[in-house]
Amino acid sequence: MSDKLQRLKVLLAEIADIKNAEALLSWDQQTYMPRGANESRGHQLATLSAIAHQKFTADEIGILLKDLEEEISDAAPDSDIARLLQVTRHDYDRAVCVPADFVSEFALVTSRAFEAWVQARAASDFALFRPHLEKIVGLNRNYVTFFPPADHPYDVLLDQYERGMKTADVNAIFADLRPKQVELIKEISTKPQVDDSFLKISFDEKRQWDFGVHVITAFGYDWERGRQDKSAHPFTTNFSVNDVRITTRFEAENPTASLFSTMHEAGHALYEQGCNSEYERSPLAGGTSLAVHESQSRLWENIVGRSLPFWEYFYPEYCKHFPSALNKIDLKTFYRAINKVEPSLIRVNADEATYNLHIMLRLELEIGMIEGSIAVADLCEIWNGKMEEYLGVRPPNNAMGVLQDVHWAYGSLGYFATYALGNLISAQLWEKISSDINDIEDRLRQGKFEALLCWLREKIHRHGRKFQPQELVLQVTGETINAGPYMRYLQAKYADIYGLGS
Amino acid sequence: MSDKLQRLKVLLAEIADIKNAEALLSWDQQTYMPRGANESRGHQLATLSAIAHQKFTADEIGILLKDLEEEISDAAPDSDIARLLQVTRHDYDRAVCVPADFVSEFALVTSRAFEAWVQARAASDFALFRPHLEKIVGLNRNYVTFFPPADHPYDVLLDQYERGMKTADVNAIFADLRPKQVELIKEISTKPQVDDSFLKISFDEKRQWDFGVHVITAFGYDWERGRQDKSAHPFTTNFSVNDVRITTRFEAENPTASLFSTMHEAGHALYEQGCNSEYERSPLAGGTSLAVHESQSRLWENIVGRSLPFWEYFYPEYCKHFPSALNKIDLKTFYRAINKVEPSLIRVNADEATYNLHIMLRLELEIGMIEGSIAVADLCEIWNGKMEEYLGVRPPNNAMGVLQDVHWAYGSLGYFATYALGNLISAQLWEKISSDINDIEDRLRQGKFEALLCWLREKIHRHGRKFQPQELVLQVTGETINAGPYMRYLQAKYADIYGLGS
Repeated sequence: MSDKLQRLKVLLAEIADIKNAEALLSWDQQTYMPRGANESRGHQLATLSAIAHQKFTADEIGILLKDLEEEISDAAPDSDIARLLQVTRHDYDRAVCVPADFVSEFALVTSRAFEAWVQARAASDFALFRPHLEKIVGLNRNYVTFFPPADHPYDVLLDQYERGMKTADVNAIFADLRPKQVELIKEISTKPQVDDSFLKISFDEKRQWDFGVHVITAFGYDWERGRQDKSAHPFTTNFSVNDVRITTRFEAENPTASLFSTMHEAGHALYEQGCNSEYERSPLAGGTSLAVHESQSRLWENIVGRSLPFWEYFYPEYCKHFPSALNKIDLKTFYRAINKVEPSLIRVNADEATYNLHIMLRLELEIGMIEGSIAVADLCEIWNGKMEEYLGVRPPNNAMGVLQDVHWAYGSLGYFATYALGNLISAQLWEKISSDINDIEDRLRQGKFEALLCWLREKIHRHGRKFQPQELVLQVTGETINAGPYMRYLQAKYADIYGLGS
Repeated sequence: MSDKLQRLKVLLAEIADIKNAEALLSWDQQTYMPRGANESRGHQLATLSAIAHQKFTADEIGILLKDLEEEISDAAPDSDIARLLQVTRHDYDRAVCVPADFVSEFALVTSRAFEAWVQARAASDFALFRPHLEKIVGLNRNYVTFFPPADHPYDVLLDQYERGMKTADVNAIFADLRPKQVELIKEISTKPQVDDSFLKISFDEKRQWDFGVHVITAFGYDWERGRQDKSAHPFTTNFSVNDVRITTRFEAENPTASLFSTMHEAGHALYEQGCNSEYERSPLAGGTSLAVHESQSRLWENIVGRSLPFWEYFYPEYCKHFPSALNKIDLKTFYRAINKVEPSLIRVNADEATYNLHIMLRLELEIGMIEGSIAVADLCEIWNGKMEEYLGVRPPNNAMGVLQDVHWAYGSLGYFATYALGNLISAQLWEKISSDINDIEDRLRQGKFEALLCWLREKIHRHGRKFQPQELVLQVTGETINAGPYMRYLQAKYADIYGLGS
């Protein structure tokens, strides 16, 4: 390895360490940190962000990158070294556009905003969060101005999470998807509703926890390199390929929510745990994009975790955990209940048919706030109006409306679209998996996930950030991100559950 | 405030943030971190240590310090500003002696050593820890060489924890103390032993936890600015005056150990929570020295927590928590049992009469290792031999011998002596408290601790690191650190319990 490459790797490893420490500060803030510490945690996060930013945007990195791009110009385009330089170049060119002061201000503002959001949500009082969100929108609008003009200002935000993706691409995919999903929901609404009344109770939290742990252990989640805790909003984070943590939460009278949340976060975590360990402490570590990340979480949560074959294996055990609630409920009734389609208020609990509409709503609001056509002061009213328009339901309070998601409190605009894209990718991958592992359903029926995990490790996980998302999806499935497989998946699933087409 | 002072404060605040982040990484490593993460955590700690060191030893800090020392030379000697410069100067002059490479190597070695120690202790296998300890001793011996020659090489290590204290000072105090303690133990051994057979069982952990929480809440521990978790070795750490955390552990067949450990750590935590909040993110934050810190923990654990007045108030409640074990045990019998004097193996569970002998043993070993007269390979044998010589007991295995303490795994040599000094200071303070608050015993009898905490806040806590330890003790008690009050305290206590002098 050349001295310059060696030096670049040392510098990048040091920056990765700082960012991993930052991630731990955030994990702690959301799990165990006492409330009084919020102000000081904000300072710590701001300082580490600023140092990581200063170090990454140092002239030395720019010079090393330029020299190495020449020196290694004959490396195979898909080699690790070529891709390391490409990914670092992408991140570097973005980072140098952003002033250091902005980075530490952003960290400080979002740390305070997070605490305000927790309180605002608990009190269902948007006014507590509004000034913080106004600052965050202002910072995001300001952030966009640091970059060369894009086709749309929102492109700059989207590219943070989905390298190479444009607002116009997302809008085109959604324009194709939206009428098909609306049509499907309409068709389902004409059919007799399934019964899930037996799931309107609370299950013992300890048993929920234990069953979730049991399931994701079967998936292949490695507890020597991870752990699960509780937090207000479930998330996955990692500070190393060997330290990938998830959180979950429990909801009263929604006894399966924690289980599906655990499976969801485990899907993210399996991705991170499966990254090539040689990428550790480098920009190649992690997932390639949030949409591909979400494809993993949704694949395990929905395509596997809400499938009939999965429950053919696990339902008897599940009944043993909650006998009084389930001993008169047969498998098929349970399966239908956990796949009930019903327009509802909370995104994370939305069914697979309506989920993407929650995302489209958020995307429109974000684009509006960034364009300046929507004011934060008007957000509750617009949110509630659009919920009524798209889903026919109106939040009774802001905790169940505009305050439900943590993302804006983190300062993350440009993020939500990746959830819907992730749904689409999960189905694209599943079609390919079903053709590569032709007994995949039988395997689920036996509670065996090794072949599936192995396939995902080989095709997706191990590559880390090496490939761009569209490139990776194309490479694995032969197509770029599109709505076809997801709609076929939903049609087949609901044909069975709701008797569509009959 | 001058621009230079403003600039120095900004730089010092940034360094404090990094060190606080480091402390969180360590807290996590000892409480929740999955085992597989140890290597990566080592890198993160090493990187943050190195950055903090580089930033603190930067020329700019040296120049600002020098300029400000001239600019502010007429400030009152006890003013915050004069003391900020004095403390920063002390730390700076030490830090510039140490090469940056050494700092990151030290962090990496100790991170690995900690994990090895956990395993070695669990397996009671010193061989697993020995190579790590050899590295640590080597690093400490090397560390000493970075500094100007001292009266004794061990002075350099001691000064890290006890500003201004010399090996000769400690030896002189211990030389006075040792024969008096030995004489006391000898006298007690001629008296009938107290009965603590009823404490050789296990109590329910949840109830132990709850009672400990109840007690330290009464002490004044602020849960909005702290929390308690479990760890292999109990400790207190803080990342802000508003985030001061403690840990505890449970021991089978030693049902009061966790409670006294919780009181002990709460004593440390009350000190940190009581520091002047204006010192936040500056070198004046924290406790002045480990001995003064230990005076706080031992005061709450022993002088308060093992006193008869304390238990006159709490014993009825305690019995309600553990009725089957205690319903036939009267207060006085319980009080005698928790104050039983008996030479034993484990330092943290040692009684007040024998504890300091554990310290003297460790001090001798450390001085020997630093001088080069004791090899790590011989440590078990020497440890066990000295235990037999000083206390008449021989560890049956290394987990109960040389592997019992975490300190060497952290790389901390020079630390242990501060525990015994802390015992002495706690009694010096208590004599003064008893004269300033003449109904202090009645207050304990009523479970009222406000006046005590208030006194400690005023005299000790709020000053943070502003004064040197000997200076602070002199200022508060009129004497420097000495064995008189501690011996008087022990004599009085055991006269009652063992009928000494009768």
